[in-house]
Amino acid sequence: MAHLLLLNGPNLNLLGTREPGTYGSVTLEQIVSRASQLAAEAGHHLSTFQSNAEAELISRIHEAPASHVACIIFNPAAFTHTSVALRDALLGVKIPFIEVHLSNVHAREPFRHHSYFSDIAIGTITGLGAFGYELALRAAANYLSLPRQ
Amino acid sequence: MAHLLLLNGPNLNLLGTREPGTYGSVTLEQIVSRASQLAAEAGHHLSTFQSNAEAELISRIHEAPASHVACIIFNPAAFTHTSVALRDALLGVKIPFIEVHLSNVHAREPFRHHSYFSDIAIGTITGLGAFGYELALRAAANYLSLPRQ
Amino acid sequence: MAHLLLLNGPNLNLLGTREPGTYGSVTLEQIVSRASQLAAEAGHHLSTFQSNAEAELISRIHEAPASHVACIIFNPAAFTHTSVALRDALLGVKIPFIEVHLSNVHAREPFRHHSYFSDIAIGTITGLGAFGYELALRAAANYLSLPRQ
Amino acid sequence: MAHLLLLNGPNLNLLGTREPGTYGSVTLEQIVSRASQLAAEAGHHLSTFQSNAEAELISRIHEAPASHVACIIFNPAAFTHTSVALRDALLGVKIPFIEVHLSNVHAREPFRHHSYFSDIAIGTITGLGAFGYELALRAAANYLSLPRQ
Amino acid sequence: MAHLLLLNGPNLNLLGTREPGTYGSVTLEQIVSRASQLAAEAGHHLSTFQSNAEAELISRIHEAPASHVACIIFNPAAFTHTSVALRDALLGVKIPFIEVHLSNVHAREPFRHHSYFSDIAIGTITGLGAFGYELALRAAANYLSLPRQ
Amino acid sequence: MAHLLLLNGPNLNLLGTREPGTYGSVTLEQIVSRASQLAAEAGHHLSTFQSNAEAELISRIHEAPASHVACIIFNPAAFTHTSVALRDALLGVKIPFIEVHLSNVHAREPFRHHSYFSDIAIGTITGLGAFGYELALRAAANYLSLPRQ
Amino acid sequence: MAHLLLLNGPNLNLLGTREPGTYGSVTLEQIVSRASQLAAEAGHHLSTFQSNAEAELISRIHEAPASHVACIIFNPAAFTHTSVALRDALLGVKIPFIEVHLSNVHAREPFRHHSYFSDIAIGTITGLGAFGYELALRAAANYLSLPRQ
Amino acid sequence: MAHLLLLNGPNLNLLGTREPGTYGSVTLEQIVSRASQLAAEAGHHLSTFQSNAEAELISRIHEAPASHVACIIFNPAAFTHTSVALRDALLGVKIPFIEVHLSNVHAREPFRHHSYFSDIAIGTITGLGAFGYELALRAAANYLSLPRQ
Amino acid sequence: MAHLLLLNGPNLNLLGTREPGTYGSVTLEQIVSRASQLAAEAGHHLSTFQSNAEAELISRIHEAPASHVACIIFNPAAFTHTSVALRDALLGVKIPFIEVHLSNVHAREPFRHHSYFSDIAIGTITGLGAFGYELALRAAANYLSLPRQ
Amino acid sequence: MAHLLLLNGPNLNLLGTREPGTYGSVTLEQIVSRASQLAAEAGHHLSTFQSNAEAELISRIHEAPASHVACIIFNPAAFTHTSVALRDALLGVKIPFIEVHLSNVHAREPFRHHSYFSDIAIGTITGLGAFGYELALRAAANYLSLPRQ
Amino acid sequence: MAHLLLLNGPNLNLLGTREPGTYGSVTLEQIVSRASQLAAEAGHHLSTFQSNAEAELISRIHEAPASHVACIIFNPAAFTHTSVALRDALLGVKIPFIEVHLSNVHAREPFRHHSYFSDIAIGTITGLGAFGYELALRAAANYLSLPRQ
Amino acid sequence: MAHLLLLNGPNLNLLGTREPGTYGSVTLEQIVSRASQLAAEAGHHLSTFQSNAEAELISRIHEAPASHVACIIFNPAAFTHTSVALRDALLGVKIPFIEVHLSNVHAREPFRHHSYFSDIAIGTITGLGAFGYELALRAAANYLSLPRQ
Repeated sequence: MAHLLLLNGPNLNLLGTREPGTYGSVTLEQIVSRASQLAAEAGHHLSTFQSNAEAELISRIHEAPASHVACIIFNPAAFTHTSVALRDALLGVKIPFIEVHLSNVHAREPFRHHSYFSDIAIGTITGLGAFGYELALRAAANYLSLPRQ
Repeated sequence: MAHLLLLNGPNLNLLGTREPGTYGSVTLEQIVSRASQLAAEAGHHLSTFQSNAEAELISRIHEAPASHVACIIFNPAAFTHTSVALRDALLGVKIPFIEVHLSNVHAREPFRHHSYFSDIAIGTITGLGAFGYELALRAAANYLSLPRQ
Repeated sequence: MAHLLLLNGPNLNLLGTREPGTYGSVTLEQIVSRASQLAAEAGHHLSTFQSNAEAELISRIHEAPASHVACIIFNPAAFTHTSVALRDALLGVKIPFIEVHLSNVHAREPFRHHSYFSDIAIGTITGLGAFGYELALRAAANYLSLPRQ
Repeated sequence: MAHLLLLNGPNLNLLGTREPGTYGSVTLEQIVSRASQLAAEAGHHLSTFQSNAEAELISRIHEAPASHVACIIFNPAAFTHTSVALRDALLGVKIPFIEVHLSNVHAREPFRHHSYFSDIAIGTITGLGAFGYELALRAAANYLSLPRQ
Repeated sequence: MAHLLLLNGPNLNLLGTREPGTYGSVTLEQIVSRASQLAAEAGHHLSTFQSNAEAELISRIHEAPASHVACIIFNPAAFTHTSVALRDALLGVKIPFIEVHLSNVHAREPFRHHSYFSDIAIGTITGLGAFGYELALRAAANYLSLPRQ
Repeated sequence: MAHLLLLNGPNLNLLGTREPGTYGSVTLEQIVSRASQLAAEAGHHLSTFQSNAEAELISRIHEAPASHVACIIFNPAAFTHTSVALRDALLGVKIPFIEVHLSNVHAREPFRHHSYFSDIAIGTITGLGAFGYELALRAAANYLSLPRQ
Repeated sequence: MAHLLLLNGPNLNLLGTREPGTYGSVTLEQIVSRASQLAAEAGHHLSTFQSNAEAELISRIHEAPASHVACIIFNPAAFTHTSVALRDALLGVKIPFIEVHLSNVHAREPFRHHSYFSDIAIGTITGLGAFGYELALRAAANYLSLPRQ
Repeated sequence: MAHLLLLNGPNLNLLGTREPGTYGSVTLEQIVSRASQLAAEAGHHLSTFQSNAEAELISRIHEAPASHVACIIFNPAAFTHTSVALRDALLGVKIPFIEVHLSNVHAREPFRHHSYFSDIAIGTITGLGAFGYELALRAAANYLSLPRQ
Repeated sequence: MAHLLLLNGPNLNLLGTREPGTYGSVTLEQIVSRASQLAAEAGHHLSTFQSNAEAELISRIHEAPASHVACIIFNPAAFTHTSVALRDALLGVKIPFIEVHLSNVHAREPFRHHSYFSDIAIGTITGLGAFGYELALRAAANYLSLPRQ
Repeated sequence: MAHLLLLNGPNLNLLGTREPGTYGSVTLEQIVSRASQLAAEAGHHLSTFQSNAEAELISRIHEAPASHVACIIFNPAAFTHTSVALRDALLGVKIPFIEVHLSNVHAREPFRHHSYFSDIAIGTITGLGAFGYELALRAAANYLSLPRQ
Repeated sequence: MAHLLLLNGPNLNLLGTREPGTYGSVTLEQIVSRASQLAAEAGHHLSTFQSNAEAELISRIHEAPASHVACIIFNPAAFTHTSVALRDALLGVKIPFIEVHLSNVHAREPFRHHSYFSDIAIGTITGLGAFGYELALRAAANYLSLPRQ
Repeated sequence: MAHLLLLNGPNLNLLGTREPGTYGSVTLEQIVSRASQLAAEAGHHLSTFQSNAEAELISRIHEAPASHVACIIFNPAAFTHTSVALRDALLGVKIPFIEVHLSNVHAREPFRHHSYFSDIAIGTITGLGAFGYELALRAAANYLSLPRQ
């Protein structure tokens, strides 16, 4: 049994109300609830945290090693394109993570095509809506089940 | 009568003391006072908020729909050039806004020529100093007086 | 009492008929009439000129010092993005000017994002439709009322 | 019950032998077998096709509407970065598809950072190895279960 | 005797544990202690502040003039490459500062090659590890000893 | 029967004498004469105008709606690469137009590879010499014969 | 009497069914039939070939000199933007050709604005739909009727 | 004895009054007078023309062959950076010309570093003030004295 | 004795007839014959394959390990600049190869200056005509004679 | 009477023999002789130096203040595009200089379009062959005759 | 006790006289003298060399291993931005070095923002004037005192 | 019998000792010796010259015509990427040359991907180590044996 951390970036507290055409009508609460259930089914424990503040997300990442987080599922939202500090936090704690985006960032403004996280993530899941979190959770579970080389 | 929100970004608390050659000698307090008076004359109510923290500005924008803010006057200051999260917050709440800059950003460093807000604002007022806020308030009032299509 | 000059560039004679979705339904005549009234109220005199010919606009700027124009309100329209000659004319006569754009140029084609005028203007008002001229007039009056340093 | 198509681009026939450090040691046969099983469990039928020839992949896409393919799972491999013709084939048949990449393309050569498919895909799954196909299959099934707007 | 301020940006609280291959094994506490001792030896007083929050660093800079800080030694860490707001804070208070980087940023990712601070700093010390702070302190002391022009 | 307008930009009055290696030896008069004949054969009326002055071309376009011009055949010559004002004039009057170039602009200087007109034209005919006008006339006639959607 | 070759690239077999909003509702068969008729009227013979495979198009071009093809009418479709090999094939056989595009490529994605063929073609006809082929055929006939220099 | 043409572009009628720090205090009249005298001394005849209108300059160039102009001395001023039409006019009449700039364009704004004329001129004289015209006249006279190859 | 593979890309079947000014007058047959002879003299066996089809070249590379090819001499021709799939095939089979170009690609169109193969080749021989193959064969033989580290 | 220095960069010793199509058939000796004569006529003294070594040119510039050189005429040849060290030497000695180029660098390779000297020179004379030196000498004499501001 | 080498590039012989506003008024002799004293105090020996010739600096670097130079302090001056040969010399001898710049290169011309040395240096000290050498010497001493991994 | 010149640029005197992982362990002396032998076998005479000084290499090239050098084999080393002066020297003497690089420059830093020599060389041999010189010698001999067109 492992400890997983689901981390959500700025404005994701608005999920379900904000731009449903772009982000869908599922709320963050529903996503968290479904993810916790899936984690439990896979025999893992899921913690979750959302913040609009970069510094709070950094702190949560800094605390992760102490609580033995084995894998992070991270939707950095707008910070995807601007936060070197979050990148450095993840590099600092050396915890593997999976990057998730609700919308298809490649079909939006050009500045959303670059991520400060993709090249250091295990992998990235983009454009599959709330279901993307479910896939990321499965991917994390699968990743943890692989033999470490 | 409508509710307007005057939002000011980082370092604007220094106004009147910071780089007066670039930003003028009027204080933020004086700007807010003059704007409130103008709003009252136009039969509107003005709230105001300044913060050096991106997350606090995001929160204030998130709360705006609940307090029926009809239009935002926003000087994002340095966040103009770096904050996708504030852009997303404004897109999320779908409240129209007018972008204001005290100094002529086009006559300064190249990185100040790009704004993450201009293309989603109603319009932009740049380089007219503290008087630009007054113009923005008038523009907001005019905007609200137009028939909605 | 000062002499103000309202200068309009190419295709603005079509205002009210041309692309109302982009430029609104107010005619240039109405804009000029409103601006003259506002100027009179502020105790100033307003001259006005529109041309589709760059050379005629240059000539009008060259003549401005002789008629003691104190401030120009200029919507260079398409010449915004292409005319170094008009920039040089304004630099040559050294009359301060305010740049106005009816539409939000930042939300249109990329070639409309650069202006040959913004960095040498007092300031710029963009995307506020015909009301932008009114604001520019007020800004000019305010500018003239400031003590010269 | 729907018909799904699993499409694999050039060199993927080498899977399991080619660059295992980059692409893993699972063979294409194993991937196809696991995907078929998952599709069957979800009540769907899976067809599969791999080719090193762009024209054969185009033909397979052209034939898809006649066999009522409801969703394509596509790993374009090297054609990701070079084939406008495959993009046009997918646009032509208007069948929704999910893009899959075994390796983390964002951590490799810069020319692998651009895809001709991502902006027209439902979504993209990158860097999760052979398990990415399993996730893509689940995503396709989920997509087909959503009410059509 | 002058008041010096040692300012450290995000993730530097991890020093000694985070990526020792890149950042070395000295802790921030050890750095601060050594710096305080050197400052005392030079007859100066050293304050110190670390934060992962941009807004807190801005506030600390805003407060610096009131506590008569004569020179700042600043390692902006990840904010080096993204924070116009911190740049504006430093420009606003007009306190000279020396930029320090532990690692050789020029030997790392391309986005680490640009700094929003170097062109407005007195000077920059890069790649010399924890010893770089010691050099920066000496440079600050030397700078303060120079006759003001 | 429709009214067509054949518009020619700067230096095309030199046709037949200017750079025959690049532009051929047919004169503008001969082109106009042939085009008028073809228009008459197709049951249409052709007006024609050449000018070296951008403003005169703009005026001619502005007048076109009043004389019920149904389609414009336009060789903007050098203005192809520099005139946003002509682009705006065409957008303003909303008359469909076909862009013609005598020479193969793609085989010449790089600055001739971009056109301010191609993306808003019905279509473009390039490099086919004087015969290109004949094709453009046929294309216009064909375009007018299509059912309007 | 000359031998003309009408060459069509990938996905054009879908014409009439694929994206009619972009490419129209005429089928390739209808285009070929109309072109053959026009060629016959002009006293020429027309061969025609469509393929989704770059190599087959290359082969057809290689065979052209042996069958005395005097001019090629070529719609390279998606290969316009990616195939240096087809460019080299055309350069190799030295047969003049006219480039045709159904849609207005300049009004579409940026990667469709560059062609590997335009600078070596006689000329290019873009955006005029199926009628563009008819124009190209006339252009080819006219080209062949010109005295060879 | 040859006929020389001295052509001056927009705003040069302001010479002596406009930005003397940049362009010097000599008037255009004085420049013309001095140039005529020098031409006469060299046994040549000098015509001269200044206009703020691109079209008038084009016309003057078009007329030059009829009046047997052997060489043009051209200060295109702001049109240097924007006028393809003037470039085409010069290419069209095939009269050799020398480009002159009063100010050092390389020490000014980046958009003044590119000229549409330099690569087709005999040569260019930049930054030497009114004296540059005198040098250009001597260069033209020398050019005409060279044996034609 | 080793097995060498000489691989030639698209249009090279035209050698000796196609653009002799650029590619010389030697035929592919003559090149192959000379290369076989040289290989035999060096005690090696040479296989050879030319194709205009990317997929056939990929297949030939995939088969190479089974026939114990020790080194490939590869002229990718036009695929040099466009084929990531061939690059991946070579990376997949891990057989060392030498890149050959008949013409001096650096003296031709800019798009010929980049190769998808050079950085993963042992080395590259460019611009030395048919003799370049002979040198490549010698280089391969020399490479195979070196002690493996 | 002033001391002028004529400085010539690498390969100019070949003048008259090297690429006469580009550089003309006059030798450096003839240029120097003519320049000395002109200087003498103007009442000045001319020193001259040519070197293929950047360091020797730097030394000659360093020595110039000691020999009271009032103005330098400098053809940096190939160093125009590569030598920051020569730029720094000229900035260091603060002697005004005129830049001369024999050929029209703007009509040659793109890397010859940028100069490390033009923005700090008094002015530049380009493309006028050996006569350009004569003009530069006159320009220097004229420059020295101007009243110093 | 170690052997240190202080290497200075072109124009630094002018120090104290050249552009004191940029480079300060300390002479190279004074810098060398102070550095020697500091080296002695730290128990090391300092050699020193300045040259305006790239080749002489290369030679001095080549000779360094033979004289057991343990660390180089290098101010490449203008060669910072242009000399790959010096970079290769340092890579060739594999002696660690510290890069020093007197002025703040980041606040000067854009071409001074890139260094061919920074990414291979231990570290860089910029903008701290002559005192920067003193810091570099301390940094070298500190570097040599670290345990070798 | 012809005279060949083998020219080697900066740092190549270190061969065999410098970065053997990149450049191999053969010394320059061994390369020269082997090349002389090969030249003799082919009936030619080989001169050889290495220098770290650009000016000495230029001089050697200038002297080449006088000693009837028929072909140069040139490894410009670091000067490949920086020396326009050497390019001009080679253009000046018009002696054909073959460019050689020991290492695979395409697999190294981006600034090593551009050469100032490749487009004017007969051809280029890259990445084949010391054996590349042998190939270049053969290529030169072959080139000289071809009939001159």
